[in-house]
Amino acid sequence: MNLKPIVSVMTAVYGVGIAQAQTPPPPLSAADSDPMKMGWMIGSPPPADKRIKATDMTHYSFPQIRWSFANFRQVLPTTNIGRGDGSPALLPHSERTDIDGITFTPTGGTATMTWAQALDANYTDAIVVLHKGQIIYERYFGVMSSRQPHIAMSVSKSFFGTLGAILVGEGKLDENALVSHYIPELKDSAFGDATVRQVLDMSVGVKYSENYADPDAEVWKHVRAGGVFSRPAGYDGPTSFYDFLLTLKKEGEHGQDFAYKTVNTDVLGWLIRRVSGKSVGEVLAERIWQKLGAEQDAYMVVDSNGTEFAGGGINLTTRDMARFGEMMRLGGRFNGQQIVPRTVVDEIRKGGDKAKFAKAGYTSMPGGSYNNMWWVSHNANGVFSARGVHGQTIYIDPKAEMVIARFASNPVAGNEQSNTVSYPAFQALAEHLIATL
Amino acid sequence: MNLKPIVSVMTAVYGVGIAQAQTPPPPLSAADSDPMKMGWMIGSPPPADKRIKATDMTHYSFPQIRWSFANFRQVLPTTNIGRGDGSPALLPHSERTDIDGITFTPTGGTATMTWAQALDANYTDAIVVLHKGQIIYERYFGVMSSRQPHIAMSVSKSFFGTLGAILVGEGKLDENALVSHYIPELKDSAFGDATVRQVLDMSVGVKYSENYADPDAEVWKHVRAGGVFSRPAGYDGPTSFYDFLLTLKKEGEHGQDFAYKTVNTDVLGWLIRRVSGKSVGEVLAERIWQKLGAEQDAYMVVDSNGTEFAGGGINLTTRDMARFGEMMRLGGRFNGQQIVPRTVVDEIRKGGDKAKFAKAGYTSMPGGSYNNMWWVSHNANGVFSARGVHGQTIYIDPKAEMVIARFASNPVAGNEQSNTVSYPAFQALAEHLIATL
Repeated sequence: MNLKPIVSVMTAVYGVGIAQAQTPPPPLSAADSDPMKMGWMIGSPPPADKRIKATDMTHYSFPQIRWSFANFRQVLPTTNIGRGDGSPALLPHSERTDIDGITFTPTGGTATMTWAQALDANYTDAIVVLHKGQIIYERYFGVMSSRQPHIAMSVSKSFFGTLGAILVGEGKLDENALVSHYIPELKDSAFGDATVRQVLDMSVGVKYSENYADPDAEVWKHVRAGGVFSRPAGYDGPTSFYDFLLTLKKEGEHGQDFAYKTVNTDVLGWLIRRVSGKSVGEVLAERIWQKLGAEQDAYMVVDSNGTEFAGGGINLTTRDMARFGEMMRLGGRFNGQQIVPRTVVDEIRKGGDKAKFAKAGYTSMPGGSYNNMWWVSHNANGVFSARGVHGQTIYIDPKAEMVIARFASNPVAGNEQSNTVSYPAFQALAEHLIATL
Repeated sequence: MNLKPIVSVMTAVYGVGIAQAQTPPPPLSAADSDPMKMGWMIGSPPPADKRIKATDMTHYSFPQIRWSFANFRQVLPTTNIGRGDGSPALLPHSERTDIDGITFTPTGGTATMTWAQALDANYTDAIVVLHKGQIIYERYFGVMSSRQPHIAMSVSKSFFGTLGAILVGEGKLDENALVSHYIPELKDSAFGDATVRQVLDMSVGVKYSENYADPDAEVWKHVRAGGVFSRPAGYDGPTSFYDFLLTLKKEGEHGQDFAYKTVNTDVLGWLIRRVSGKSVGEVLAERIWQKLGAEQDAYMVVDSNGTEFAGGGINLTTRDMARFGEMMRLGGRFNGQQIVPRTVVDEIRKGGDKAKFAKAGYTSMPGGSYNNMWWVSHNANGVFSARGVHGQTIYIDPKAEMVIARFASNPVAGNEQSNTVSYPAFQALAEHLIATL
């Protein structure tokens, strides 16, 4: 989240400037920020103060994100990821009524909370829970519906990490080769002497801050280059994702630390395009989407060269995201076919280097690791997950035979705080499912 | 077609400026302008001279339109028109091999031409011919495929004219009411004292030139306001479709002449939104698209307020456009249900005022008329059609039980010249089908 637009919106809403209020008031609650109630983009035309667009950054300001995260194609150019001609893979619906009342204690807290309360606490836009492949719980809030795609943010990374691992398995990408072997253009950048494996596991030494609370962090320059964020007057920086990647400087050594940096996925996207001769959306469609029995097309945000935002630009429906999670839970087999090789799924679930991960200081997943752009808990249930800013997630619990696909528009970008609620809630549901078998 | 970008591209391609060449060379042929051969937007990244974007108008320059007309969502913001959850309505495929060789004489010409030659002459991107509901001919060129949507340009008008006629039939829109009754904001514009019927039949007296050959014509200001065309530096005109409509001045009297002006459809779109409380894309989805058994979602180009370009912004697949035509041929009944009331289809087919139409001077349809945003030939076969610049068309021949859906990217915007080839070709095919029953 870029704090600047948040702050400016808060100033507009509360009538207080930063100078007057060192501590801004808390953001609107989920109920109070409901996008239908706020009336975003309703009317012909919508009133001026109810319009959301990319040019003034309202599309990335809270509470407008409660509308825009479900409507990115309406403010930015996009490409389609076609579902193909097959029938959707059936997800039988068997709603359980014993979930909303499940209680748990948030990490570091003392008071208990219910599952239903957690949905609000995390600004949930949509959630689908699968148990043994059946939809046991499905909720849509605000402008979301079963047919409406929502931006997946960095959950996108896990899609492309999976594709990358597939290509490595097939020998189309050599994980020990240098990035510059495939992309000579990156020879003089931070990535020139990094290996494909270091990119896949995010252990590249590159000067790039992913601190969402810092408006000057490189992650914001990255999305500004790609046009996802608008550019200030007089902007003279890079104007495409690739041009941004070329500017990145080395910092530290490759392979030493796990350092979660979105640029890795955009470099991975470039690698996939270079070895496939196709866009990453085409590769995703051919390799996964058209086999998955998705209900709807997905789409990707693109820059002005038509280059997709691999690090965070997939938009898809909640059920389709759940299908992808279910396929991964089932070892890559879904909809009557082996979509991702079992060996790739096993490698992902086995996880990465725990020591490197520990040093990175993610408190929400102690003992965890990261590899192939997936978060691996190494907990008793074998949970592994995909995570995106503002609360997007695919949470896969193999022991409980449970997959959760959740979209959210939390005012805070980073998930460490919201995961103190989400993870205990998800774990409590998993234990409940195991206990009530 | 805006001549400015065409000329600049020709200058780039041929190395001659306007000063040197009073008569520019002819544009590249269909074969030579094939977008795959030209390599538009291929590569990671595409070479600088192979990129197409809206900001520099390459998306609306020939030969780039041969790529961009199939990829508008990649350069502009869009909204989805969902096909719903039902199965596609089957279009049985029964390819005939006796069509490419059909010969005809273009209007005003002496030499004969074959059907296959006509495809090239008209820069056809995609064509589907239905005979008695079966696909008897289907071709895709360049970057088109059966799954790829293409911009329909003013064929969009016939979709919204049909919706408007439905709402009139239901009493939700009073055709005799003034536009300002529904849209008080337009009271002081040209449309304030025009009736809904005059809008539907395009007999509004408004200062607005649709002369595509004139770079200063209001039609270009219209699309510039909506962001479909980029705005020059220092631009201080309207920045949304609605804001543009507010500026229009009356010229002449309403109801006197047929005057084909795209603004009428955008006013109609506003009327539909105002009485439905929904976007026109939502109304189109609910009323037609989700009932039609479309194979794919369609989509619409929108301005920065999320307002769809009703006058020309629908993008859809060729087969789905053929389904819409087939539904109209069958009196509104298709896919097992009455989608458009029979009375509405009958009214459209009956046509409008021939005398008014004659005065407008369309040589390609002598004795024709226009009503509810459809072109009616009044010929022996009862042909009626939807038409869009650069060769988009739905051509419905009830006597021959034939529907043609065609997308094209002709370098010339206006269809009068290309129709000297298209109409005789379509008529020859119709006669052939009747003769070989």
